[in-house]
Amino acid sequence: MPLSAKLVVDIHTHVYLPRYAALLRSRSSVPFIRSTTTHQGTSEDRLLILDHEPSGGRPVGAQYWDREEKLKFMDKHGIDISIVSSANPWLDFLPASQARTLASELNNDLEQYCSTSPVVGNHKVKRLYGLGLLPLVPEITTSALLEIVRQIGSLPHLRGLIMGTRGIGKGLDDEALDPVWAAIENAGLIVFLHPHYGVDGSAWGDKGNGHVLPLALGFPFETTTAATRLILSGVFDKFPSLRLLLAHSGGALPALSSRLASCIGHDPIVASRLKHDARYYLGKLYLDAVAYGPEELGFVSDVISRAERYKPGTSTKNAANRSVGSKRMLFGTDHPFFPPLSSSNKWASVTENLEAIADVEGWSEEDKDGVRGRNAISLFNLEE
Amino acid sequence: MPLSAKLVVDIHTHVYLPRYAALLRSRSSVPFIRSTTTHQGTSEDRLLILDHEPSGGRPVGAQYWDREEKLKFMDKHGIDISIVSSANPWLDFLPASQARTLASELNNDLEQYCSTSPVVGNHKVKRLYGLGLLPLVPEITTSALLEIVRQIGSLPHLRGLIMGTRGIGKGLDDEALDPVWAAIENAGLIVFLHPHYGVDGSAWGDKGNGHVLPLALGFPFETTTAATRLILSGVFDKFPSLRLLLAHSGGALPALSSRLASCIGHDPIVASRLKHDARYYLGKLYLDAVAYGPEELGFVSDVISRAERYKPGTSTKNAANRSVGSKRMLFGTDHPFFPPLSSSNKWASVTENLEAIADVEGWSEEDKDGVRGRNAISLFNLEE
Repeated sequence: MPLSAKLVVDIHTHVYLPRYAALLRSRSSVPFIRSTTTHQGTSEDRLLILDHEPSGGRPVGAQYWDREEKLKFMDKHGIDISIVSSANPWLDFLPASQARTLASELNNDLEQYCSTSPVVGNHKVKRLYGLGLLPLVPEITTSALLEIVRQIGSLPHLRGLIMGTRGIGKGLDDEALDPVWAAIENAGLIVFLHPHYGVDGSAWGDKGNGHVLPLALGFPFETTTAATRLILSGVFDKFPSLRLLLAHSGGALPALSSRLASCIGHDPIVASRLKHDARYYLGKLYLDAVAYGPEELGFVSDVISRAERYKPGTSTKNAANRSVGSKRMLFGTDHPFFPPLSSSNKWASVTENLEAIADVEGWSEEDKDGVRGRNAISLFNLEE
Repeated sequence: MPLSAKLVVDIHTHVYLPRYAALLRSRSSVPFIRSTTTHQGTSEDRLLILDHEPSGGRPVGAQYWDREEKLKFMDKHGIDISIVSSANPWLDFLPASQARTLASELNNDLEQYCSTSPVVGNHKVKRLYGLGLLPLVPEITTSALLEIVRQIGSLPHLRGLIMGTRGIGKGLDDEALDPVWAAIENAGLIVFLHPHYGVDGSAWGDKGNGHVLPLALGFPFETTTAATRLILSGVFDKFPSLRLLLAHSGGALPALSSRLASCIGHDPIVASRLKHDARYYLGKLYLDAVAYGPEELGFVSDVISRAERYKPGTSTKNAANRSVGSKRMLFGTDHPFFPPLSSSNKWASVTENLEAIADVEGWSEEDKDGVRGRNAISLFNLEE
């Protein structure tokens, strides 16, 4: 029996696996988890993942590591399947040998986490699938990276990997990563590109705005920069079947893509390196639908579909077809970040993103079902 | 006789007035203009406005300071009126006393530049109007700033002022600027907010991408950050009639505004400081139409118009009305930046932005005429 067309799949949902949480607890510099005693005398865990973290870090609890909490959250919000990935900052802070060992162990842990999860209804499909980790740190060898790509490809419930923006120290436009892109492309794995570092904190000024500026702006700026550098490096020309999924609907990349194309057009050296207009490459991307507003989602689908105009030999100036663009967009929640202020409530990060999908002008019900779940079932090959 | 509804007004067009260009020539550290001899033995001026400028700076010439060149450019591209502003970095690098003197002199120079310009057809309206400069530098006194606001308000061909993002050293969310916002609001001047610094250059990596990343991404990131900090500081609550025009269609602010609202909603301290949802304030902004693509412009007009939903007492969930949003968008060219690669060509920065306006789905011809010129005639009160 085929899966229902109405399944909801969350492709942007994180975990600190117990082995990783234990590592964070063992540390005393970022990233680490600190146990403190509140004014009320109860114990509270706080997570600090960046230097100069506002508000003494954010409270963390079982939502971050306990699989039952993930499943409860899914049940509460009508999410059938989650594609779970480790939360930032992954292995970025570790020496190469430890990163390599831990990547392998955490990938096996995540396979176990998924493979022993319940099934969806009467189907064989599990409720949890995963995105593995590569030991992307300075001084790692290419062969170690390729070995972990092979491991991820061999674990049946892992369907891709999550990746930050630093690569092995010089960013993702580093040619040293070419063999890794090639291996990922060959293995048919999805790369989920996710921010962690934001931008230099001096940009935020000295007002007390909590996490608002680094999260609302810094995260998308980082993703935008990394994806743009990938475009400029020619990675999408060299690896045309590479499938990259960008967090937070690509950040500011869709909104800045025509400006980017114009700036490239005014720089003959950069322009000559690329086979296509920058806007062409946006049509090769997958973007989560974690943008919190229907206008944003509609626009992102415009930008994906207009990539057609920049295909070689195309002379169409047709208006962007949002329906086409919607096929590369996928619902996500960013769980367990952005918890509700009251624990009994539904999570606004879920309801806002589901409402946004429901309210997009120019998407049919089928398009919306696609963004809510069908696109993920197809991209991650979940139909069995 | 009223002005034609078809006039084209360029509200984003820059000048280095001769007095300012002379200052840049007298300097040997950024910002400065350096005369070099090319391989062909001819002399060439290059402008360096940031440390670590790629490609040894950009070539500059008469387009930057000669009024005849501005008028020729306008004629070539069918631009009837330009609202000219000094190009970055303005007076940011000067000691307070020099900045104050020069602001006053340059405002008078710009008044002269505009007041002696030709008229449009048989009208009294000139072809050039201007945006003045404030001496926004550390250690400037409030009274000096207020005096220059008064000066600008008294010069008949200046209709506002251009401003960078540093304020008097701590950004635009600095309460020390409150009297300045109040004076600008009272004088009915338009503030054109424009980037210069971008973000920390380490984000761009070490590949040779010329000016592409700082211009395509850094500039919009800076504008987005400054405008967001203004929203978070409550400036729009305190000065509800302040009219702010954002460069480059607001950068990434429209695309990140629902994410911003969500992040604020998860931070009770920040949320409690603001009277409205972040998206409400975007409906108070004016945005240039310098985004190089029709989907971008349509989306920006969606975001402006949906601000209605966040007005107190509103329960509408109507789809955004692009026509409403278009009323706050204004054509611009960014001249004399982005010159064509061949001097005989039209400037792509003009043709791309005009084509983008023409191609927006959901804008009527009247809306498009508005964005091309009528909105500027109204905002800058040019009808006489």
